[in-house]
Amino acid sequence: MPYDATELKDWQIAELADKNIPTPEQLVEMLALQKDELIPYGRTPKVDFLKVMERLQNRPDGKYIEVTAITPTPLGEGKTTTTLGLIEGLAVRGKNVGGAIRQPSGGPTMNIKGTAAGGGNALLIPMTEFSLGLTGDINDIMNAHNLAMVALNARMQHEANYTDEELAKRNLRRLDVDPKNVEMGWIIDFAAQGLRNIMIGLGGKKDGFLMQSKFGIAVSSELMAILAIAKDLPDLRERIGKIVVAYDKTGKPITTHDLEVDGAMAAWMRNTINPTVCYTAEGQPVFVHAGPFANIAIGQSSIIADRVGLKVFDYHVTESGFAADIGFEKFWNVKSRLSGLKPNVSVLVATIRALKMHGGGPAVVPGRPIPEEYVNENLGLVEKGCANLLHHLKTIQKSGIKPVVCINGFYTDTEAEVKLVKKIVTEAGGRCVLSEHWLKGGEGALELADAVIEACEEEVDFKPLYPLEMPLRQRVDLVAREVYGADGVDWAPEAEAKAKRFEADPAYADFATMMVKTHLSLTHDPTLKGVPKGWRLPIRDVLVYGGAKFLCPMAGTISLMPGTSSDPAYRRIDVDVQTGKVKGLF
Amino acid sequence: MPYDATELKDWQIAELADKNIPTPEQLVEMLALQKDELIPYGRTPKVDFLKVMERLQNRPDGKYIEVTAITPTPLGEGKTTTTLGLIEGLAVRGKNVGGAIRQPSGGPTMNIKGTAAGGGNALLIPMTEFSLGLTGDINDIMNAHNLAMVALNARMQHEANYTDEELAKRNLRRLDVDPKNVEMGWIIDFAAQGLRNIMIGLGGKKDGFLMQSKFGIAVSSELMAILAIAKDLPDLRERIGKIVVAYDKTGKPITTHDLEVDGAMAAWMRNTINPTVCYTAEGQPVFVHAGPFANIAIGQSSIIADRVGLKVFDYHVTESGFAADIGFEKFWNVKSRLSGLKPNVSVLVATIRALKMHGGGPAVVPGRPIPEEYVNENLGLVEKGCANLLHHLKTIQKSGIKPVVCINGFYTDTEAEVKLVKKIVTEAGGRCVLSEHWLKGGEGALELADAVIEACEEEVDFKPLYPLEMPLRQRVDLVAREVYGADGVDWAPEAEAKAKRFEADPAYADFATMMVKTHLSLTHDPTLKGVPKGWRLPIRDVLVYGGAKFLCPMAGTISLMPGTSSDPAYRRIDVDVQTGKVKGLF
Repeated sequence: MPYDATELKDWQIAELADKNIPTPEQLVEMLALQKDELIPYGRTPKVDFLKVMERLQNRPDGKYIEVTAITPTPLGEGKTTTTLGLIEGLAVRGKNVGGAIRQPSGGPTMNIKGTAAGGGNALLIPMTEFSLGLTGDINDIMNAHNLAMVALNARMQHEANYTDEELAKRNLRRLDVDPKNVEMGWIIDFAAQGLRNIMIGLGGKKDGFLMQSKFGIAVSSELMAILAIAKDLPDLRERIGKIVVAYDKTGKPITTHDLEVDGAMAAWMRNTINPTVCYTAEGQPVFVHAGPFANIAIGQSSIIADRVGLKVFDYHVTESGFAADIGFEKFWNVKSRLSGLKPNVSVLVATIRALKMHGGGPAVVPGRPIPEEYVNENLGLVEKGCANLLHHLKTIQKSGIKPVVCINGFYTDTEAEVKLVKKIVTEAGGRCVLSEHWLKGGEGALELADAVIEACEEEVDFKPLYPLEMPLRQRVDLVAREVYGADGVDWAPEAEAKAKRFEADPAYADFATMMVKTHLSLTHDPTLKGVPKGWRLPIRDVLVYGGAKFLCPMAGTISLMPGTSSDPAYRRIDVDVQTGKVKGLF
Repeated sequence: MPYDATELKDWQIAELADKNIPTPEQLVEMLALQKDELIPYGRTPKVDFLKVMERLQNRPDGKYIEVTAITPTPLGEGKTTTTLGLIEGLAVRGKNVGGAIRQPSGGPTMNIKGTAAGGGNALLIPMTEFSLGLTGDINDIMNAHNLAMVALNARMQHEANYTDEELAKRNLRRLDVDPKNVEMGWIIDFAAQGLRNIMIGLGGKKDGFLMQSKFGIAVSSELMAILAIAKDLPDLRERIGKIVVAYDKTGKPITTHDLEVDGAMAAWMRNTINPTVCYTAEGQPVFVHAGPFANIAIGQSSIIADRVGLKVFDYHVTESGFAADIGFEKFWNVKSRLSGLKPNVSVLVATIRALKMHGGGPAVVPGRPIPEEYVNENLGLVEKGCANLLHHLKTIQKSGIKPVVCINGFYTDTEAEVKLVKKIVTEAGGRCVLSEHWLKGGEGALELADAVIEACEEEVDFKPLYPLEMPLRQRVDLVAREVYGADGVDWAPEAEAKAKRFEADPAYADFATMMVKTHLSLTHDPTLKGVPKGWRLPIRDVLVYGGAKFLCPMAGTISLMPGTSSDPAYRRIDVDVQTGKVKGLF
């Protein structure tokens, strides 16, 4: 180490780094676990969440470090890479450190984006296991979720075929599902655009109930959203039973519990509460747990993984999906509030590339060559683009945190560009470091590690943006102004009517506010870069998730089922039949 | 041990027997493995097939014992129970013994049948893991299979939206799929009748290709069929690429390889070649591997599991799904031919209940109380019903095996009934034992164990019913006459035309003949019990599976997607949130 990241592909580095994976015995020692707290699973064991938390309930928590980013280009700015690099750097400094990241979805892995678990010398291993199913949590969620849909459609069929008396013989009451008012769909963990809108139940009386239906990608499901925020097994079990599947013909919600399928769903998901252990390329443990979408869910690893991490590590690094206006805002006002865990510091990741884009650089399009402004020095674009960085810096400061700004270094960055960013951040009262973990691994992340260690010793008066008592519309207004920089919010009449209803109904008092907005701009329009001024946030609808307990004000469309492109990654993936090794992942 | 099987439910016995599960260290010793040949996975590790076979390639195989049954009632006659009981009995006799059974499907487990892994004191543990996903093989198959459908539908969309030139830019040629001639469907591991016939791709140009489609249950898939017969990883990889997904508009087959998705499918399935280890209630190792349907596939555990079992055990017991006319016939003429492994003995399982049914007893209907003829002594029905038993006995003898007939004892059987069956079998030149493993575990199976040990010392001149050179129609005729007792075969004109085409085309020379027929009768009519005379077997169609290399002559309908009933098992399954234990499985 380090490996030549400018020459080798990520999957080749991952293969070379394989030797850094600790044995189960070593891992038990590293995490100071009892032997029976590690549940074996190939090279990626799980930790027994219930056992560890019970044993360590009185142990003080370690330092809690959150990693977020400025508004990214469509290529991403290396939040995961920086998360892993920081862990590697802290380990070089001799700290007992680990972290938590999300499990990737088969959709992007098999499509254009690839598995994307960091990169260069700051990537996650073992890459094959991580990229292809890991310990099966997503499959368990898929089975549990689809079982609810089997139960729904079968019930609709039987209710159509049987009289009330015949139903009563089977100890069933008529639920009277309105087929035009079904909320839930099926899930699959691929980008299957052909399953986005479907008709099911064609055929005869025993071929199910004829209705429109849909598939979403597994990681967008409410069950995945729930896994990410569940505090423990009783909490998970309770939420599973409250998922609203459909409405009856009088408009009353029908839940998984009404279908008597919630117990079996929980049985399929029983193993998902235990986080899986993977490793940085340099061998530090990283929990991989849950992989919820960042729009309708929290978009970050689970509360459970953070709870365990804070008990077994002195420094626990966790990542918040997308830019700070999405990722940090949800960490701040939703995840931390639900978990009761308070961060010591945030790391705000920026790249010279993204700063240039915000400064007015040409559009960055995945799959096309990067324009030369991004490869050659351009101090003008960098300087102008820092406005976006400073905006996010201020947002994080509003929570009480004094963040560390980290320039995620790329080998085309010039010294003058880096110096300029550091100067601008420092003048604005922030602190800024350069980190070169991609190229150099932990040794390249020491400036970052030291800044984080120092920051963790400071007092933080962490407090949410709004109290729980604040009504929904006021919350949205506050987020729009304070986090996005809008002048206010425009509610569509239907959305406002819904919002009023939720505000008035005490059943929704403990529902989290889960904003839906693009991460490619501070506004709802992904083409507007930098820090747009003089605009208002339109809210078109408010979605409800009864099990996750989320109200989602929608400032943008959500696609819960991406599409597979004409040149997807699966074309290049294969197995070496002599060794069983997978090649071609990226 | 034994537990009171007349009082306790199976899941309760399974929970009590949990303490008999060996630790990984004990298991390594029991199987005489190198430590790195056991792949950890909770309490049900996998064995590394490639490593074990390489190390033991020159070790002589153990004794190979096949378990089959007479034509069953719809309740089943305890083949798995007898398989597990025999293993327990051989262990009491001090033998190094193990076996192989199929992985259950989530469909039956969550519907009426339940998980059905043996019963009483001869059941499989750990029951929760076994019943709910195990080590994820079915999920891996599901993901690999559905990825092919994602690839197909996305390709059809892109070909509809792009010109040849635009396709060429992406290095794609036009496959020109005929949407009216798509063979493959999606899979899910539940009984989801609502997904049997569907329309997909509704919406706009980017919402997939509009077409009819279908879901089958995962265990009926060609990938599952392939896993059960693959000899090793190169064989599996090759077959995965030959699956015919659809036909083009000129009628030419389009395979997974044409879609460039076969490598990624194999990557998803890389772990499935390693059999999982579970245990009898008394702690003997049993490989659980593959779970193919018994109509379009072999309906028994895999060739891989048998290959490993014969290397690590002195006595390896394997089960053939359904009655001997289906299960044994496929073991005899397909599985053994493909594996090159020759059995030492077969055990033919019969129950007094099934014999009474064949003797003219009233219909046995699942979910309804059993008629009293089956509970009280009735020597007349038993005597008459033995014709079915003797028919299967003779079938097995045609292979060169001298089977052991085993009465799978139930506590309502009378001594006179058992004595009568033994007398009839003995007079017909067979041997017959009573086994009471359900009630007493291994101690109850000693008569069976001793008979099997003795039989394993005999010479067996095992030979297939037909040589590979024999044309398809002649093979079917031979199976119909010699195995089913028909007077001949009637081919529907279309089926015969197909058969002629296959016979003439050398591409199909190494395709196995995989009969499709009900197991509830020796004939194609499930209501005809005993040994029907004077009938002919109708063949309506011949299905082709290009990856599995099966030609399936159809003497009956196949449903590849069962339905969920109005009173399914999931209503009674739940998780204890304090312990994480699953209750209510059966």
